[in-house]
Amino acid sequence: MTDFFKGIEPIRYEGPDSTNPMAFRHYDPDEMVLGKRLEDHLRFAVAWWHSFAWPGGDPFGGQTFERPWFGDTMDHSKMKADVAFEMFSILGQPFFCFHDADIRPEGDGFAGNTRNLEEMVDHIGTKMEEVGTKLLWGTANLFTNRRYMAGASTNPDPDVFAFAAATVKTCMDATHRLGGANYVLWGGREGYETLLNTDLGREDAQLGRFMNMVVEYKHRIGFEGTILIEPKPQEPTKHQYDYDVATVYGFLKRHGLEDEIRVNIEQGHAILAGHSFEHEIALAAALGIFGSIDMNRNDYQSGWDTDQFPNNAPEVTLAYYEILKAGGFTTGGTNFDAKLRRQSLDPEDLVAAHVGGMDVCARALKSAAKMLQDGELERLREARYAGWDTEQGRKLLAGEWGLDQIADYVRENEIDPEPRSGRQERLENLVNRFV
Amino acid sequence: MTDFFKGIEPIRYEGPDSTNPMAFRHYDPDEMVLGKRLEDHLRFAVAWWHSFAWPGGDPFGGQTFERPWFGDTMDHSKMKADVAFEMFSILGQPFFCFHDADIRPEGDGFAGNTRNLEEMVDHIGTKMEEVGTKLLWGTANLFTNRRYMAGASTNPDPDVFAFAAATVKTCMDATHRLGGANYVLWGGREGYETLLNTDLGREDAQLGRFMNMVVEYKHRIGFEGTILIEPKPQEPTKHQYDYDVATVYGFLKRHGLEDEIRVNIEQGHAILAGHSFEHEIALAAALGIFGSIDMNRNDYQSGWDTDQFPNNAPEVTLAYYEILKAGGFTTGGTNFDAKLRRQSLDPEDLVAAHVGGMDVCARALKSAAKMLQDGELERLREARYAGWDTEQGRKLLAGEWGLDQIADYVRENEIDPEPRSGRQERLENLVNRFV
Amino acid sequence: MTDFFKGIEPIRYEGPDSTNPMAFRHYDPDEMVLGKRLEDHLRFAVAWWHSFAWPGGDPFGGQTFERPWFGDTMDHSKMKADVAFEMFSILGQPFFCFHDADIRPEGDGFAGNTRNLEEMVDHIGTKMEEVGTKLLWGTANLFTNRRYMAGASTNPDPDVFAFAAATVKTCMDATHRLGGANYVLWGGREGYETLLNTDLGREDAQLGRFMNMVVEYKHRIGFEGTILIEPKPQEPTKHQYDYDVATVYGFLKRHGLEDEIRVNIEQGHAILAGHSFEHEIALAAALGIFGSIDMNRNDYQSGWDTDQFPNNAPEVTLAYYEILKAGGFTTGGTNFDAKLRRQSLDPEDLVAAHVGGMDVCARALKSAAKMLQDGELERLREARYAGWDTEQGRKLLAGEWGLDQIADYVRENEIDPEPRSGRQERLENLVNRFV
Amino acid sequence: MTDFFKGIEPIRYEGPDSTNPMAFRHYDPDEMVLGKRLEDHLRFAVAWWHSFAWPGGDPFGGQTFERPWFGDTMDHSKMKADVAFEMFSILGQPFFCFHDADIRPEGDGFAGNTRNLEEMVDHIGTKMEEVGTKLLWGTANLFTNRRYMAGASTNPDPDVFAFAAATVKTCMDATHRLGGANYVLWGGREGYETLLNTDLGREDAQLGRFMNMVVEYKHRIGFEGTILIEPKPQEPTKHQYDYDVATVYGFLKRHGLEDEIRVNIEQGHAILAGHSFEHEIALAAALGIFGSIDMNRNDYQSGWDTDQFPNNAPEVTLAYYEILKAGGFTTGGTNFDAKLRRQSLDPEDLVAAHVGGMDVCARALKSAAKMLQDGELERLREARYAGWDTEQGRKLLAGEWGLDQIADYVRENEIDPEPRSGRQERLENLVNRFV
Ligand SMILES: [Co+2]
Ligand SMILES: [Co+2]
Ligand SMILES: [Co+2]
Ligand SMILES: [Co+2]
Ligand SMILES: [Co+2]
Ligand SMILES: [Co+2]
Ligand SMILES: [Co+2]
Ligand SMILES: [Co+2]
Repeated sequence: MTDFFKGIEPIRYEGPDSTNPMAFRHYDPDEMVLGKRLEDHLRFAVAWWHSFAWPGGDPFGGQTFERPWFGDTMDHSKMKADVAFEMFSILGQPFFCFHDADIRPEGDGFAGNTRNLEEMVDHIGTKMEEVGTKLLWGTANLFTNRRYMAGASTNPDPDVFAFAAATVKTCMDATHRLGGANYVLWGGREGYETLLNTDLGREDAQLGRFMNMVVEYKHRIGFEGTILIEPKPQEPTKHQYDYDVATVYGFLKRHGLEDEIRVNIEQGHAILAGHSFEHEIALAAALGIFGSIDMNRNDYQSGWDTDQFPNNAPEVTLAYYEILKAGGFTTGGTNFDAKLRRQSLDPEDLVAAHVGGMDVCARALKSAAKMLQDGELERLREARYAGWDTEQGRKLLAGEWGLDQIADYVRENEIDPEPRSGRQERLENLVNRFV
Repeated sequence: MTDFFKGIEPIRYEGPDSTNPMAFRHYDPDEMVLGKRLEDHLRFAVAWWHSFAWPGGDPFGGQTFERPWFGDTMDHSKMKADVAFEMFSILGQPFFCFHDADIRPEGDGFAGNTRNLEEMVDHIGTKMEEVGTKLLWGTANLFTNRRYMAGASTNPDPDVFAFAAATVKTCMDATHRLGGANYVLWGGREGYETLLNTDLGREDAQLGRFMNMVVEYKHRIGFEGTILIEPKPQEPTKHQYDYDVATVYGFLKRHGLEDEIRVNIEQGHAILAGHSFEHEIALAAALGIFGSIDMNRNDYQSGWDTDQFPNNAPEVTLAYYEILKAGGFTTGGTNFDAKLRRQSLDPEDLVAAHVGGMDVCARALKSAAKMLQDGELERLREARYAGWDTEQGRKLLAGEWGLDQIADYVRENEIDPEPRSGRQERLENLVNRFV
Repeated sequence: MTDFFKGIEPIRYEGPDSTNPMAFRHYDPDEMVLGKRLEDHLRFAVAWWHSFAWPGGDPFGGQTFERPWFGDTMDHSKMKADVAFEMFSILGQPFFCFHDADIRPEGDGFAGNTRNLEEMVDHIGTKMEEVGTKLLWGTANLFTNRRYMAGASTNPDPDVFAFAAATVKTCMDATHRLGGANYVLWGGREGYETLLNTDLGREDAQLGRFMNMVVEYKHRIGFEGTILIEPKPQEPTKHQYDYDVATVYGFLKRHGLEDEIRVNIEQGHAILAGHSFEHEIALAAALGIFGSIDMNRNDYQSGWDTDQFPNNAPEVTLAYYEILKAGGFTTGGTNFDAKLRRQSLDPEDLVAAHVGGMDVCARALKSAAKMLQDGELERLREARYAGWDTEQGRKLLAGEWGLDQIADYVRENEIDPEPRSGRQERLENLVNRFV
Repeated sequence: MTDFFKGIEPIRYEGPDSTNPMAFRHYDPDEMVLGKRLEDHLRFAVAWWHSFAWPGGDPFGGQTFERPWFGDTMDHSKMKADVAFEMFSILGQPFFCFHDADIRPEGDGFAGNTRNLEEMVDHIGTKMEEVGTKLLWGTANLFTNRRYMAGASTNPDPDVFAFAAATVKTCMDATHRLGGANYVLWGGREGYETLLNTDLGREDAQLGRFMNMVVEYKHRIGFEGTILIEPKPQEPTKHQYDYDVATVYGFLKRHGLEDEIRVNIEQGHAILAGHSFEHEIALAAALGIFGSIDMNRNDYQSGWDTDQFPNNAPEVTLAYYEILKAGGFTTGGTNFDAKLRRQSLDPEDLVAAHVGGMDVCARALKSAAKMLQDGELERLREARYAGWDTEQGRKLLAGEWGLDQIADYVRENEIDPEPRSGRQERLENLVNRFV
C-alpha cells in the first residue's frame, strides 16, 4: 500500500440525496436495469495514461502534477501500477486500459521496451488477481516517441513501419496474456502534417497491410477479443486517416476488414469530426461495426479535444440510448479517456473526477433505459417510416422498378406528397421527461 | 438581345499588365499549357442558379437583386435563359450547369414540371447551338420545394422518394438531350435535422437503391456522361449522408457503385467538412473516384459555405496541382458554384465576378503546371518514400511476413530508425516560387 | 377567436411526473423561489418574429409553414396578432417582444410604415388589455429591407441613417405607448461584409451618434424602460460592431454611454462569439451593464446561430445562476428568441416548443436557486481568493506599492508561492447535485 | 562560432527569378519603398522562444529537436545566445524578441532568476554590439512555470501577483538596458479554466492595477519604448481577458490606460478570436492603439493557433496595407512569432523558414505599397461615403438633430434611399492586380 490516497475511503453508493462528495449518488453496481447489473451494462474502465502518466502540461506550460511515481525506472513503473490498483479498488472500477508506454519505462530500443513490458505485465497480472480488476483493452503507443513523428505504419521509412509492427505484436501478446477483452489501435500519427510531402496512395496501402497483419496475428495466437480502431479526425496530425466512423468503414471495406475490425468511439473525437457522439454510435451500429466507447467530453467553446470528464447527463443519455438500442456492449465498455484539468493537483481530485464521471454515466444509462422501456420515442420513429412497410413502399426498394417505371407511376397517380411535421421539439421534450 | 448587359463588351485577354477591370489578365483560352489549350484544361462553367436565379436573400434579409426575369412564367424563364447565354458569350465560358428548377418555372405537380422543363430544354438547346456553349452537367433540385423538407430519396414518406426518382429521370433525360458531359446528384436534404426521428439504416438502404437506379437508367438510355455525387457535410441539414469524399467512397463500396459513380468536389464543402480542397481532390484521385469540381471559396472566418468567387491564387494553385497530377479533367470541369455578395447589385458585378474567378483559376493552373514541370516537388516526395522501393520495403508490404516475423527482424537487426526532417517550410517556400 | 389552436387547451402545471406532453412539469408560475413567484423571476416573453412571422425558409429551401395570416394586408397583420394573443393565453406567457416589421405590413415608405405601425399598436394595445400580456420590449427591424443591406446607422449613405433614425423614433414611441419595459437595438447590419469598402472610423462615429440620439430621445419622451444593445459577432454580416459584451462595453465607454445602455444577451450569440452564455452574463454583471436575455440555443455542431428552443437543463442552470447571483432581472426578462425547426409544421409544435422551453428554464432557475441557497459553491469561490482580503493582499492593490517595492518584498521575503488545486471536477460534481 | 549552421552562408537577395532556396527573392533590405528602406518598413525580429527554446513537443509527443544547447545551465543559455546571433547574422534580421525564460536558465526562486537574467543580459548586450542586432521587445514569461497555472496578476493568490510583478520589473529593467523599442505583456494565464471558481470582478481589478504599475514603472525608469498588450482569446486558458483588440480597448478605457498602452497583434490570435488579421490592425488603428505585430499564420482547418510561418502573400498583403495606411510602424515591427513544424529537424529548416517568411512579408509589403500608391481602392472607399461629406451628412452627425427632427426630415422629404452596389468582387479583383 502506498499512501497516495491516504484518507480516501472506498466509494459507496449513497443515493441521489447524498451530499457526500466522495459517494456515488447514481451508480449502484448491483442495481438491475433491463435485466442486467448496472456494472455489467457500463463496464467502466480507468485509462492508465491520463490518470497516472500525464504530467499536466499544456502547450504553454510544463508539468503541474508532482507524483512520487514520475521517473524512468522500473520501480517508478511498479509504484505507478500499485497506485493505479489502489484507485481501481477505491472506485470499484471493473476494468482498466493501457498503452505499453504507460505501464513500462522507455527501454533501450525494441528489445529493451519488450523486456520492460513483459516484466510489468507480470507485475500487473499479479495485481489483477489480487484486486479483481480486469483489462478492457490494451494498445501500443505509436505516437509519443520521436521515431513516430512522421507516422507509424504510414511512415515514409519502412523501418518505422517495422518497429511499429513489432511493437504491436508485443502489445497484443501482453493484452492476450492479461485476458484483455479487446485490442485497440488509435492512429494518432497515421495521417499527415502537409499534403506537400505525402503520398496518400502509398500510405493507404501501408495502413491496409498493417491492419491485415493485426487481424492475422490475432487469429494466429487465438486472441478472442475484438480488434478496434479508434477514429479521430486530426490532432496530433493535421489530417488523420481514421477520420470518423464513416471513413473507417470505407477503409475496412477497401481492405476486406469489415467483418474483423470494429470501432472504439470517443466523444471528443466525434465532436472534433463535426458529429455528435450519438451519431457516431448510431452510425457504427447501422454499419455493423460498433465496438466500444471512450467516454469524455470535448470543449465546444474552444473546439479542442480536451478529454474532460463527462458532466452533462442529458448528452450522455443520448449516447447510452444508442448503445442500448444496439443491444448494449458485448466485449466493449466505457473507458474514461478523460484527464484532470491541470490545476486539479490533489489525489482527491483524481478520485472525485472519476466518481463524478461514473455517476453521470450511471444516471444517463438509467435514463436511457427508461426511455427505451417507455417506448414512445421508438413508436414515433417507426410511425414516421410506416409508409415504407406498405406493399408500395417495399416495391420501390425491391429493385424491380427503375426511374422510368417510377416516373410513370408518379405521373399516372398524380403523386404529390404533402409534408408532415418532423416533431423535433416534441421529441426533445419527450427526452427531457427522462433526463 | 436583352439589354441587361448593355455597355459590357466581350471580355478579352489583355495580359498581366492590363488595368482594364473588364479584361482577362491571365486567362487566354488558346494559351498552350502542358500541350493543351487553357480552355480545354479548365473547362469553365457558369452555374445557372447563383448567377440567374438567386434573389440575394440571407437569413436576415430578403431579395436585393431586382432582375427583369424574376417571375413565375415561361416568359420569365426564357428571358432568364437569353440573358444567361448573353453572359456566356461575353465571358467566353465554354460550359454551363443547371438544376431543373433554375431553368423552368414551377409547374403544377410532376406533370407540369416536366412539361415546363421540356419546353425550356428546347429553348436552351436552340441557344446552345447559336452561342456554342455546352452543358457540363445537369441536376435535379430536390431540396427547395417544401415536399423535400425531410429528404428526397431518404424521406420517411415513400411518395417523396417516388417524386424525387421521377424528377431525376426527367433531369437525366434533359441532360442527355442537351449533350451533357456529366450528371450530378447533390443530396442537400439527404441527411437529418435530428437523430431522434431518424432511422439511419432505412435511409441508407433508400439512398443506395436510388443511386443504383440512377446508374441503371444511365445505361438504359445510353447516356455516356459521368454520374457524380457532390459531397457536403451539412447545410441545409444538420448532417448529410454524402459528408465528404471518404464517406461517399464508403457508401459507393457498400452499394457496389464504386466503378460507376465519381465525385464532384466543391471547395466550400471540403472546408466545411474539415478538409482542404486539395485534400479532397487528392483523396478522390487516390481512391479512383475523382470527377469534377465546383469552384468557389468558403469564408474561413465565419465557417459558412458562402460560395464566394475564388480570389486566392496560391490556394487555388494547390487544387489544380492535384488535378493535373491526377491527369486533368476528363468529362469534368470547373463549375463556378459561386454567387455574388448580395450587395453586388450591378450587371457589371456579375460579369466582373466571373472575370476575376476565371483569371484566378487560369493563373493558378499555369502556376500548377509550372510546378509540375519543374518536378522538384515530386522528386522530393518520391525521395521521402524511397525506402519502400527497396527489396526490404517491398517485402514488408507483400503479405509474406506477419507481425511476428517482423518482430524477429526488428529484434535481430536492432532496427531503431532515426527520424528525418519533413521539410514542410522548405516545401512551402518551393511552392511560393510558383505562385 | 381564430381556430388556429383549435383543440389545444391552456397549459397547466401538472408536476414532474406528468406524462401529458401539453402540460408544464416544472413551471408553476406561482411557486415561490427565493421569496419571489417563479413567473416574476423568469419574466417569459414570446418573440413575435420567430413564432408568427417566420415562413420556415433556409438557405436551400423556401417557406414550409402555411399560416392563414401570411400576407401583406392589415387584415393579415391583425389576424396574426389575434393568433399571437391566443398563444400567449394558452401558454400563460406574461410578456411578448416585437419588431415593427413583425406586427405591421410593409408600407409605402416611411409615412406608410408609420401609419401601419400606429394602427397595429392600437390593435395590440386593445389585445393587451383583454389578455393581460405585457410588452417586454420593442425594437426596430433595420435589417430585412434591402435599403439596409449595407448597414442602418453605419450605412455609407446618410439617407439610410436618417431613415433608420426616423424608424427607431416610431418604434420607441410604439414601445412607450404599449408600456414596454425595455427598448432593444440589435445591429444586424451594423458591421461589414468586406473591409475593402469599409471605413471603421466613420462607421463608429455614426453608430456612436445614433446611440446617443436614442438615449436623448428616451429622456425627452420620458420613457422609463431600459435601453438595451444585443451583441452578436457576425451573421448576417461578416463582422458586426456589437461583437460581444466586452466589445459593447468598450463602445459605450468610448461614446459616454456606459450608464445609459445595458445589454440583452442571447445564448446563441454568446456561443457564436466564442463564449459561454454564463460568461457573457457574468461579464455584463461585473461591468454593470447586465439587462436582459434572449433565451435559445445554438447548434454547437454546425456552429450556426440556429435559435433553437433550449433543452439542456444543466446548461441553462448555469445561466440563471449568474442572473440570480447578479440580483435577478429588474426590467429585463427571458425572451424566447427561438424558432421552430422548419419541419415542425403543426400548431401543436409551436405551443409544445414553448412549453418545453419554459419548463427547461423553470427547472434550471429552481436548480440555480437551490445551488445559491446551498452556498457551498460561493463559499469555495471566496475561499479561493481569501488571500486578497488580508492586509497584505489589500496593500498590493491599493496603489501605494509599485513594481520595485513589490520586487523588494518578494526578494526579501523569498516569496515562492505553491500552486493550489483549482478543484474544477469537484465543482462540476457539486453543480451536478443540483441539476 | 558554434558549428550549428555550418555550411549555411549569409542569405543574399537574388531577385524573383532565383531558384536558390537559400536566397531572398523579394527581400532586399535596401530597396526603397514609399521613400523608406524595406528593412526600415518591415523591422523584422526573430522570436527567441520558438527558434531556440522550443523542443518540438505537441500534446501527443515529446521533444523532436535535439539541440546542443538544450539544458539547464548558464553555459547552455550562452551557447543558445551565440547560435541565435549567428542566425540573426545569417538572415540579416535587424531585431529579436525574448522572454526572460528563453534566455536564462530557471533559477532558484526570484533571486536566482534575477541573477541568471542579469548575467545573460550582459552576455546578450555584448553580442548585440558585435552583431548589430537590436531588441524589438522584451517580455516576461508568466505562464510556463507551474506557479502561474491559475494566473499571474489575476491569480487568486496574491503571492503569485507579487512574484509576477517582481518578475516584470526585472524584465522591464533588462529590456531598458538592452535598448528595447517596446515592452510586451501577453497574458497567457490571465483568464480562467472554469467560471465556477472565478471572480471576474476581482480579477479585473487585479489586472487593472498590475497594468497601471507597469506604466508607472516605465515612467519612473525613463523607458521610452511603447508598452504593448498582446490580445489572445483563449489558449492556454479557456477564456483570456485580453480577448481581442476591442476587448483590450475596453479594458484600457476602464482603467484609464488608453493613452499609455498599445497592442501587439498576432495573426494567429486574430483568427482564433474570429477576426481577420487586417481587421484587428485596422480596428487598432481606428482606436488609436496600434503598436506592433506578431507575424505567423494559423491553421484555418484545425482552428488551432499553430504559429506557422506565413506563406500566403495575398493575405499578408492585406495586413501590411492596413499598417501602411495607418502610417507604418513607429516603435513596432514584424516579429516572427512562428515556429517550425516539429518534423523540421534540420538547421537548414530553421533558416529556410525565416527566409520564406521574410520573403512573403517583403513581397506583401511591396504589393501593399503599390496598391496604396495606385490609390484606386482608397478613391472607391471615399466615394462610397461621399454623402457624409455633404452639408446634410454633416448635420446628421453634428448633434443638433435628434430622432424626432430626423423623423420629420424623412417624412417631409419622403426620403427613401435606393441601395447601391458594394462592389466586393470588383474590389477583390482590384486587389488581385497587386498580389
Ligand atoms: Co480515446
Ligand atoms: Co481525445
Ligand atoms: Co456545389
Ligand atoms: Co457551397
Ligand atoms: Co436575439
Ligand atoms: Co440568434
Ligand atoms: Co505572439
Ligand atoms: Co500564437
